[in-house]
Amino acid sequence: MQSQSILKEHLAKTASLTQEEFEYLFAHFKPLSLKKGQMVIREGDKVDHEYFVLSGCLKAFFINDEVKMHILQFAMPTWWTSDYHALYSQTRATINVDCISDAELLSLSNADREKLCREIHQVEYFFRWRTNKGYVAAQKRLLSFMNDDAKTRYEELLQMYPQLHQLVPKHLIAAYLGVSRETLSRLYSTR
Amino acid sequence: MQSQSILKEHLAKTASLTQEEFEYLFAHFKPLSLKKGQMVIREGDKVDHEYFVLSGCLKAFFINDEVKMHILQFAMPTWWTSDYHALYSQTRATINVDCISDAELLSLSNADREKLCREIHQVEYFFRWRTNKGYVAAQKRLLSFMNDDAKTRYEELLQMYPQLHQLVPKHLIAAYLGVSRETLSRLYSTR
Repeated sequence: MQSQSILKEHLAKTASLTQEEFEYLFAHFKPLSLKKGQMVIREGDKVDHEYFVLSGCLKAFFINDEVKMHILQFAMPTWWTSDYHALYSQTRATINVDCISDAELLSLSNADREKLCREIHQVEYFFRWRTNKGYVAAQKRLLSFMNDDAKTRYEELLQMYPQLHQLVPKHLIAAYLGVSRETLSRLYSTR
Repeated sequence: MQSQSILKEHLAKTASLTQEEFEYLFAHFKPLSLKKGQMVIREGDKVDHEYFVLSGCLKAFFINDEVKMHILQFAMPTWWTSDYHALYSQTRATINVDCISDAELLSLSNADREKLCREIHQVEYFFRWRTNKGYVAAQKRLLSFMNDDAKTRYEELLQMYPQLHQLVPKHLIAAYLGVSRETLSRLYSTR
């Protein structure tokens, strides 16, 4: 029941669904309990689902040819995550998603999301605005990568994820910022 | 009439609108003829519109404290552009948009887009998928900024905008890639 109320509250911030519509929608989500370190999406996988985080924290990342990890996104409670490029274009995953901590998720298939969007106009409205916000966040991160120094990007990251240091080990924060652990320690100590 | 058919064809790639629905929608767009160098959005402006490019080419950019220009997006025919952060959150512009060449645009207000999305479910579907694609493109550019060298980013840019060299002067291509003009000349000559 708790997962239902978390999703319901999340949707209600954007869209107006009747109780009946919400229950119909909710029936399309599948609960997943995952352990720290478990993979949700692996590079090369067929990607058919997106994931709503109920508890815990995930990361979307890739490892480059020099075995360096780049983190695209941390996914905290009430965030959505997937390899959206692969999901939307029905191609193979080019990134990985795994659990930084034990996590409870709700998964929704691509086909069910499209069906729900067709059937309930307010669901389509919800997903449009969810992606609008994601688009703006991705552009903001891009601008920040182009222009800001590591210190500014670190401050922005803490603004976006205030519970970051409780949830995410330091080496992953460094991988998100694209700096070494030594640089991160320096930023951390000068706050 | 030509602008109507360009927009109609663009929408038809994603959504199914009746002729009557399309004409109703089209009546909400306003044509704009702009000259090379004219500003569409200026940092600090209130942003109430987004723009569909019929012809010509625009750039979305900002100038940092060291007077260095960063280019977020080139907008070619059938692309949409605005300061989406400002538009969606109804805050002041943090970027600029101007014309690289003479350009014909169709503008749509924020209020009209929301009204049309409410009134016609397929319009909401269209805008959801437009943003989905924009989101994936922004994430791809971010990954590329994190990981790829200038040469790879240059090749990706040419794939995305095959007519780039006809439409955009070299110093703007360099500003998009975040490299000097000398580096760009080297990339250009080694293709």
